[in-house]
Amino acid sequence: MLSTMQDVPLTVTRILLHGSRVHGDAKVTTWTGDGEPQRRTFREIGARAVQLAHALRDELGVVGDQRVATLMWNNADHVEAYLAVPSMGAVLHTLNLRLPAEQLIWIVGHAADRVVIVSGSLLPQFAQLLPHLPSVEHVVVSGPGDLSLLEGCRPRVHAYDQLLAGRPAEGFDWPEVDERQAAALCYTSGTTGDPKGVLYSHRSVYLHAMEVNAASGFGLTPAETCLPVVPMFHVNAWGLPHAAFMAGTSLLMPDRFLQPAPLADMIEAERPTVSAGVPTIWAGLLAELDARPRDMSSLRTVISGGSALPPSLMKGFEERHGITLVQAWGMTETSPLGSVAYPPHGLSPEEAWPYRCTAGRLPASVEFRLAGPDGSFLPWDGTSAGELEVRGPWIAGAYYGGAGAEPVRPEDKFSPDGWLRTGDVGTMTPDGFLTLTDRAKDVIKSGGEWISSVELENQLMDHPEVAEAAVVAVPDDKWGERPLACVVLRDGSALDCAALRDFLGERVARWQLPERWTRLEGVPKTSVGKFDKKVLRRRYAQGELEVVELR
Amino acid sequence: MLSTMQDVPLTVTRILLHGSRVHGDAKVTTWTGDGEPQRRTFREIGARAVQLAHALRDELGVVGDQRVATLMWNNADHVEAYLAVPSMGAVLHTLNLRLPAEQLIWIVGHAADRVVIVSGSLLPQFAQLLPHLPSVEHVVVSGPGDLSLLEGCRPRVHAYDQLLAGRPAEGFDWPEVDERQAAALCYTSGTTGDPKGVLYSHRSVYLHAMEVNAASGFGLTPAETCLPVVPMFHVNAWGLPHAAFMAGTSLLMPDRFLQPAPLADMIEAERPTVSAGVPTIWAGLLAELDARPRDMSSLRTVISGGSALPPSLMKGFEERHGITLVQAWGMTETSPLGSVAYPPHGLSPEEAWPYRCTAGRLPASVEFRLAGPDGSFLPWDGTSAGELEVRGPWIAGAYYGGAGAEPVRPEDKFSPDGWLRTGDVGTMTPDGFLTLTDRAKDVIKSGGEWISSVELENQLMDHPEVAEAAVVAVPDDKWGERPLACVVLRDGSALDCAALRDFLGERVARWQLPERWTRLEGVPKTSVGKFDKKVLRRRYAQGELEVVELR
Repeated sequence: MLSTMQDVPLTVTRILLHGSRVHGDAKVTTWTGDGEPQRRTFREIGARAVQLAHALRDELGVVGDQRVATLMWNNADHVEAYLAVPSMGAVLHTLNLRLPAEQLIWIVGHAADRVVIVSGSLLPQFAQLLPHLPSVEHVVVSGPGDLSLLEGCRPRVHAYDQLLAGRPAEGFDWPEVDERQAAALCYTSGTTGDPKGVLYSHRSVYLHAMEVNAASGFGLTPAETCLPVVPMFHVNAWGLPHAAFMAGTSLLMPDRFLQPAPLADMIEAERPTVSAGVPTIWAGLLAELDARPRDMSSLRTVISGGSALPPSLMKGFEERHGITLVQAWGMTETSPLGSVAYPPHGLSPEEAWPYRCTAGRLPASVEFRLAGPDGSFLPWDGTSAGELEVRGPWIAGAYYGGAGAEPVRPEDKFSPDGWLRTGDVGTMTPDGFLTLTDRAKDVIKSGGEWISSVELENQLMDHPEVAEAAVVAVPDDKWGERPLACVVLRDGSALDCAALRDFLGERVARWQLPERWTRLEGVPKTSVGKFDKKVLRRRYAQGELEVVELR
Repeated sequence: MLSTMQDVPLTVTRILLHGSRVHGDAKVTTWTGDGEPQRRTFREIGARAVQLAHALRDELGVVGDQRVATLMWNNADHVEAYLAVPSMGAVLHTLNLRLPAEQLIWIVGHAADRVVIVSGSLLPQFAQLLPHLPSVEHVVVSGPGDLSLLEGCRPRVHAYDQLLAGRPAEGFDWPEVDERQAAALCYTSGTTGDPKGVLYSHRSVYLHAMEVNAASGFGLTPAETCLPVVPMFHVNAWGLPHAAFMAGTSLLMPDRFLQPAPLADMIEAERPTVSAGVPTIWAGLLAELDARPRDMSSLRTVISGGSALPPSLMKGFEERHGITLVQAWGMTETSPLGSVAYPPHGLSPEEAWPYRCTAGRLPASVEFRLAGPDGSFLPWDGTSAGELEVRGPWIAGAYYGGAGAEPVRPEDKFSPDGWLRTGDVGTMTPDGFLTLTDRAKDVIKSGGEWISSVELENQLMDHPEVAEAAVVAVPDDKWGERPLACVVLRDGSALDCAALRDFLGERVARWQLPERWTRLEGVPKTSVGKFDKKVLRRRYAQGELEVVELR
């Protein structure tokens, strides 16, 4: 029996209309470096979003669910695109300006972007790409930039403010979209294969924003000011622009000023209460504050996600600057809010600490399960490690197949019953706290048990004479796979592998102890500085490593 | 283009499974008067919900979307029914134990309830009804009660704990329901016509719980303990049981101990951080605390809704007991969360006060509009008064038609485009704060303008010699309707109507001033103590009132 409740869709349009009316006095403040910050009210943003929708439809001919791309910093113009493009029924495609040119070209082509809105300061980079973007018919330049760089290009070029000027600022006939329609598109920058597009729906964006605003989420209210340091091209800035418009939370936008010194300056000057970004940003900010303290007292909470938050960083902020860092876990495919590491209630700081070092506790809308080596699902006992699989209304169930094509569901990314395979290996406590121990592709599958390469590496690197340690899986006739320990000793160390094995033997279970050891001059690294374990496995397979066997 | 996100329904089942697993240590504590409180963990509640589902299906034969009714106080058994019944696909029908017998009989018949779970302490009342409830096949008695009262009745009688005992406590195969399926049923106790059933969906319950948990809502987290004084038969206890299981918030349940003294005792002993109920409850509690102070320091926020919160009550709690009351507005048809009166950020207490006295500010998921006397929609200017119409995913779009019947959409309750007509007249500020000024049926529609009867009554009752004042609309040839002022003077007063009119003329606009005046010995009242304006209008029409005309 169907209920008799109204059938009202959850849409980005609702967020736009609510924020710009009910919270019209809230502000989006964009940092401009040395100049006066640019300030717009939500009311102004709403009016400009209407003008942008008119411009896109009436002048640039955007119809249906065409893709409108942005290659932009975090700023007020970008917020307008965030709200206007999905509200008019089109799809906002945020381009990651840090990707290599060939990937950006591939992505724009795959999405068949018709319009690109680009920050003027990015024109030198964008002008190089443009000749290789045949789908693009219009380029809209936001903010100051050297437009001569685009001279002679095929697409029409527009200045953002001029494009909006004079158009109606109210009364756009927003279509009533189905909440499952696509609203936004973001490609993962995975290290293997082509980038994969996650196509968010109005429903997923809306529900995710509600979770961000939960008191157990990031707790946005009209009393807060939020500084999204996480880029708006990175999983919708973790949903913060949508959540802010939903809750009436003012936004402080860093634009391109993401270096530690200007971040510290803007926090001192504009006094945000909550911020969010990756650990690298916070590490830089901590060093800046240690060197040149600023007034950070406005910050209630700083959310860290994207990679593991070093406990020393949390401690440094807390002890030296009184700032609480909270770790959260998620990925492009999870919108991203998967879990937030608030400790259980009623614990002492010492008791709470281990919980705060986890990847967090899952909210009601997100389901986790751990798939073990044999495919069965593991208990939440705090020790059984399996690949994390995720289900929920803001979790991807497939990837965008490209314009006109069917969605794709690679087997290694989605289980037969539709759960997302995260590629992360971890454990769950009985009360729903996730600890990540490895990447699935790096874990060593030994006789039906999994051995965490990261755990062995961390233990080895605890030895004072070990500079670096990488552990990779190598084939083993008896066990399927066994760990190979690759160690780099500090200059002058004469430590031998047998001594290191004894050291490790006191710290991990016997069955996890590597039999194969090799010494390297340095661990090969990927372009983003991570251990390149593919190279190590290949060099082992080709007999290029000098391996000692110790049993 | 459909997105590629997972299509996961929003269900009560998800709330049950999440709360009982991830927040298994949270507690439902039920007050027992002088005895030790009954304490169950969410884990135990979850296990018992599974047992209850087994009992209902395997023993009582509940299938499909049959209605399972409850006639119960707020307690742990009731929470189990809240979660188990919708999760198994059936519909939980909460019966208002304060309704007159004939209404309860009508409602149970209309809903065709097959099972009633009844609190043992309510058996004397229920035994009177039971012979008149032909649809009921099973009665389940929760808690201690005199079962002999049901002897010889036709339905089978079960003791709740015995019915659960020995059944499997895990592994019920919860169906995957469509989120738009009915989950819960609650009848309005309107003063006119038959009661009307609002049929909540899994989706509406879920989304509403998310809004309750928003930091701008009631902000439930695992660090809170919530005391729902509002009955669980009154709009799902404002969604608090669902929200608590979603957020991991412990519940303190008052059972039948709703009198001021035990409420004060349980707050002092169990230290809830947030509570919710109607102004009458808080007025009683304030008097109790004034007479016999208790330690109320645990209470962060007390939510008041259901009728207008007198400012003196807010001030009394705040100034004498340090407790913040927050007003919220809603009704059975709105799930009920419509608006919450948190003042805008950054105001002084004096500036914030008028906002706190409003009916609140609307959240993103709820849309308001004001329909004026001529049917057009009015501006949000803080002064234009119109009938409040509401739209949103947890707002009713029709009433339950009864078993097997189509939903009903009375014209006076739903607009042609599907909005709920609340019957409340009010104004909106530009930033979305609602102030209620009258009921639509009592407002005076005078020459295209609306005059608030409540406003005139409040002004008249401000005169020291006026004991009561009721203002009703009477027909007028020129203006359509004009106000008739009916006043009751205090004993010994010799005030005449002309003097009262002069008094009023200094306080309201000239065009609002009544021309027709009458003096009464007392204002006729309804069974719940409200002014019975129907009677006054009829007595005027029949020429039974002695009316003075003053122009």
